[in-house]
Amino acid sequence: MPVAGLHDLLIKELHDIYSAEKQIIAALPKMIDLAIDEKLKTGLTTHLEQTRMQVERLDAIHAELGISHDTRIVCEGMRGIIAENEISLQEIQDSHTKDAAIIAGAQKVEHYEIAVYGSLSTWAHEIGNDTIADLFEATLTEEKQADTLLTKVAQGGLLMTGVNEKAADSIETG
Amino acid sequence: MPVAGLHDLLIKELHDIYSAEKQIIAALPKMIDLAIDEKLKTGLTTHLEQTRMQVERLDAIHAELGISHDTRIVCEGMRGIIAENEISLQEIQDSHTKDAAIIAGAQKVEHYEIAVYGSLSTWAHEIGNDTIADLFEATLTEEKQADTLLTKVAQGGLLMTGVNEKAADSIETG
Repeated sequence: MPVAGLHDLLIKELHDIYSAEKQIIAALPKMIDLAIDEKLKTGLTTHLEQTRMQVERLDAIHAELGISHDTRIVCEGMRGIIAENEISLQEIQDSHTKDAAIIAGAQKVEHYEIAVYGSLSTWAHEIGNDTIADLFEATLTEEKQADTLLTKVAQGGLLMTGVNEKAADSIETG
Repeated sequence: MPVAGLHDLLIKELHDIYSAEKQIIAALPKMIDLAIDEKLKTGLTTHLEQTRMQVERLDAIHAELGISHDTRIVCEGMRGIIAENEISLQEIQDSHTKDAAIIAGAQKVEHYEIAVYGSLSTWAHEIGNDTIADLFEATLTEEKQADTLLTKVAQGGLLMTGVNEKAADSIETG
């Protein structure tokens, strides 16, 4: 579709992130199933619920802008991130290394979203729509919190032994 | 390739980010050509030089680990991010909206790298290789700085008028 200004660009990116969120909702249950560490499993399960709420927030933004969903659009960035993570998980043999790869994959997902929601909230302010800017910022804050939580799990801040230390141990013993 | 532990996972992700950096070096000149805002053009040009240095840092990490490059591996996440940005830029009609889209695309690139270099530095510490951990962290710091600079350009902090304000104006006049 032709993009005639910042308002159009915002709508285009909105369709893109809507596709991304739907792909995340489809991918997270598989990651939750494979995760061994309880803190990681719980964190991802909470984030799945949060992602469903974020899609509702996107529905509200579509309504506010008076536009329909465009489900023909597939977010290629998220498709690539999820595909490479799923292939990676198939190749890993021990559970704790799988946990480390799940965290890395989830952080790629979070950072993609942090970039997009950051741009969307900036653009929403620029076109003078503070209502949707606030909604984008609410999701942006959640994504940053989810990323921080994943870093803590990876670095062992939330665990007796960090996921990655367990994976490193498996090199010694495996 | 089978991944037997965290050391293998680190090598796998190293091949992935090496492919990502090469894709960025191929994509940035097109973005620099299209950019209108001088601060943005200069920032992207500086980042292209920095990316070439980051590839040299990856070469040093390969040498430290005693491994060769695996150029068969294509980073699918970066491929998707760059593809969607290039398609988006073809659809945009005015220059200032193009600048806004270039910044958004570049921030997706930066955030992908922030996620990956964050995981790589954590894993390098866990496997006890502080030499490569330091190299990953040097790049991580640069990527975060590049992202902060792009946010400032988008929000107008470095400009008399922000790129996105100009794009919003084009809705009124265009």
